[in-house]
Amino acid sequence: MSDVARENHGDLIASDRIEGTTVYNRQGERLGHISNFMVDKRSGQVRYAVLSFGGFLGIGNDHYPLPWSMLSYDTDKGGYVVDLARDILDQAPRHLPEERPDYDDAYGRSVFHYYGLIYPW
Amino acid sequence: MSDVARENHGDLIASDRIEGTTVYNRQGERLGHISNFMVDKRSGQVRYAVLSFGGFLGIGNDHYPLPWSMLSYDTDKGGYVVDLARDILDQAPRHLPEERPDYDDAYGRSVFHYYGLIYPW
Repeated sequence: MSDVARENHGDLIASDRIEGTTVYNRQGERLGHISNFMVDKRSGQVRYAVLSFGGFLGIGNDHYPLPWSMLSYDTDKGGYVVDLARDILDQAPRHLPEERPDYDDAYGRSVFHYYGLIYPW
Repeated sequence: MSDVARENHGDLIASDRIEGTTVYNRQGERLGHISNFMVDKRSGQVRYAVLSFGGFLGIGNDHYPLPWSMLSYDTDKGGYVVDLARDILDQAPRHLPEERPDYDDAYGRSVFHYYGLIYPW
């Protein structure tokens, strides 16, 4: 098998498998799980994973949009890993589960800026 | 608002809103709905929408991976539109709901080739 073929093989994941996947930080702490993720309608590019964090049994938790590039999948853990100390989330952009932000440019910039990333659109 | 801002505003859709969305063809026939979609783990690029079609009340239906670029969203219809006559699906690559193909290069090529598209990876 060529390198290209190897790179592509099994490199896809189903949307409903991403949803619900546990998210850890580099310290191995469980931060929460991915509730859903935001996709650019036209290009099909995933822009944000929405981290569900806090609350108890999913009640009263908050949703935190994370730029997709922050997440890497750890096959050993069976979950996503982000380089994110828990207390960084204290001031992070969030919304209630039943709310959906507009995801306009201003919002996108504020999210990327919060995590020290350049907003690329 | 600049053109760029206008282009980006509201241009994102939540993964769980894509799932379940009705798919029509250009003749206005309801083909089925999107059961889920396949995402490139690394790049976050959506590659296939999986069309659930046939059967009765979701029982006995088949799943058809469609290259994402085939779909366009029609706000009037509130669903996706594909340029696809129903009988094209007769011979199209499909799998049972409980099966998940490997989505390796050979499979990807066969899907793209079936719909007359160039496999870009």
